Amino acid sequence: MSVVAPTTMKKFINAADDVVQESLAGLGAAHPDLVRIDAANQVVLRKDAPVSGKVALVSGGGSGHEPLHGGFVGKGMLDAACPGAVFTSPVPDQMLAATKAVDGGAGVLHIVKNYTGDVMNFKLAAEMAEDEGIQVASVLTNDDVAVEDSLYTAGRRGVGITVLVEKIAGAKAESGGTLDDVAAVARKVNEQGRSFGVALTSCVTPAAGSPTFDIGDDEMEFGVGIHGEPGRRREKIKPAAEIVAEMADAILGDLDPSRGTDVLAFVNGLGGTPLIELYLIYNELTKHLHERGLTATRSLVGNYITSLEMAGASITILALDDELTALWDAPVHTPALRWGA
Amino acid sequence: MSVVAPTTMKKFINAADDVVQESLAGLGAAHPDLVRIDAANQVVLRKDAPVSGKVALVSGGGSGHEPLHGGFVGKGMLDAACPGAVFTSPVPDQMLAATKAVDGGAGVLHIVKNYTGDVMNFKLAAEMAEDEGIQVASVLTNDDVAVEDSLYTAGRRGVGITVLVEKIAGAKAESGGTLDDVAAVARKVNEQGRSFGVALTSCVTPAAGSPTFDIGDDEMEFGVGIHGEPGRRREKIKPAAEIVAEMADAILGDLDPSRGTDVLAFVNGLGGTPLIELYLIYNELTKHLHERGLTATRSLVGNYITSLEMAGASITILALDDELTALWDAPVHTPALRWGA
Repeated sequence: MSVVAPTTMKKFINAADDVVQESLAGLGAAHPDLVRIDAANQVVLRKDAPVSGKVALVSGGGSGHEPLHGGFVGKGMLDAACPGAVFTSPVPDQMLAATKAVDGGAGVLHIVKNYTGDVMNFKLAAEMAEDEGIQVASVLTNDDVAVEDSLYTAGRRGVGITVLVEKIAGAKAESGGTLDDVAAVARKVNEQGRSFGVALTSCVTPAAGSPTFDIGDDEMEFGVGIHGEPGRRREKIKPAAEIVAEMADAILGDLDPSRGTDVLAFVNGLGGTPLIELYLIYNELTKHLHERGLTATRSLVGNYITSLEMAGASITILALDDELTALWDAPVHTPALRWGA
Repeated sequence: MSVVAPTTMKKFINAADDVVQESLAGLGAAHPDLVRIDAANQVVLRKDAPVSGKVALVSGGGSGHEPLHGGFVGKGMLDAACPGAVFTSPVPDQMLAATKAVDGGAGVLHIVKNYTGDVMNFKLAAEMAEDEGIQVASVLTNDDVAVEDSLYTAGRRGVGITVLVEKIAGAKAESGGTLDDVAAVARKVNEQGRSFGVALTSCVTPAAGSPTFDIGDDEMEFGVGIHGEPGRRREKIKPAAEIVAEMADAILGDLDPSRGTDVLAFVNGLGGTPLIELYLIYNELTKHLHERGLTATRSLVGNYITSLEMAGASITILALDDELTALWDAPVHTPALRWGA
């Protein structure tokens, strides 16, 4: 049995075509101390960009995953974010404008989630930037263990680890790392991280006005992507303990960290799942980490890489070492992630 | 036409009766640097409570509004939170246990949202604590301009301002304020703040397993309470610009701040509305503030006082002065609000 879709979109919007621009204007208005908006190029910039002598970080992708990426622009994280239309890659010109705006002379790192459109467009933008004399390195995130190849992806999808890459590589750049250093730590985070997501409902994009996929009212999509791409299987909803056990097995079976490893455990909401459930998931997750001799010495729980109002959650596990832990703890001043002086 | 309710609850839970305890265990596990959980009394405590010589702040209320209140426990904000069952007041014994656990000898402030059960139980707890020699002051929040009297309330409901009261009074206590000082600034924030909420969907409590109220698929509840209490009227969904204009009018017509006033503008998600829409609302709100000669010098945008997975949003406006601004900016280290050294 499928849930009857509402005939009217239940959203606070004006016109579907204006959602991204109007939301960015709001982001800029709410956080003038942290970011500024280049509305013409549809780019979110760190307020004081370019920072002379610092490696700059640029990311981007389709909108609808907020706070990713615009909410992570600021000191200690991204220098710029390029939001596309909802669930649509930004364009190379946009990425080029961002890259030029933030280059402080030490090169620019592009952090690219593994979706075919994003990969192709960031590649073109990097070539154009290099033609203009800007040194660019690119790091691809592909942490989703659910499936190989998918609706918009060859290989594994880039999901939750992207948040951690942006934070940790951002701290490395802030501490004076070279472009090679910053790219290397970004790749290390991606290699040491794995994710898995589960959806209980679909989301509705403003342009479509109807659910991205149909799902029965007692079903979940096990291994869902952040655009509602199919996962491993459709199955009946189960108790959280069972769902989390299977998610943890999928992640830890693939990452295979040795006993005694410290990890960062990241429980992410896809948008429509309340925090009371995310913490309940975290509680279940700690049991599985404990069984495998792992300790979550750092955590992140909340809505950080979302799929509009989709009910669902993902888990990301990052194997830590002293370097990554120190970079995670370093100050960060962005709209969505903020700590330290 | 009403949306067909799913026959199975779409939630990450085990048993409905265990949701609150299991979620609190997760909160404690995720943030051992900030809080600890007294599971026997169902209380969230600041990790280093009691802080000798500091006025302690205790709040609480039904669960289902996360991160309120447990997510606001930590340095610079609450010393303890007492979560009840979902949408159910905590009990006096729980509040007494919290009060005793955090009293550092300088007295304890109870911050109470105006719901009949909460008011009655906090009053009893305060009397019991005073019988044990602890000085207690109480501050009631009642900022919701939507309706006088409601399903669970005589007078106005306490909603979004509660978050700002907890932050600002917490900073006052941290800076060495006496119990009178801290209570006075808490009352000032409540008096200078007003809120208004709109719901697009109902939430589903774990115990009920079905929507709290029925709402048509093209309707909104204008003036909703945080438990789904009725507001001023049920009407058709409109463009965000129109909805926000009416919300702003309701708030500013009641608060009536003079031109030139600086305000804190708080756009709060009720749980199921994505951040892209909350920032779009913020953008609309800034236009109305500007028209009235008001400037939002501080902002807060996100899910801070929720109604499980309800789609909807509330706006809170607080008229600032130098004291309130400085206390807002002071460091805070809690799971859900964190900045400064």
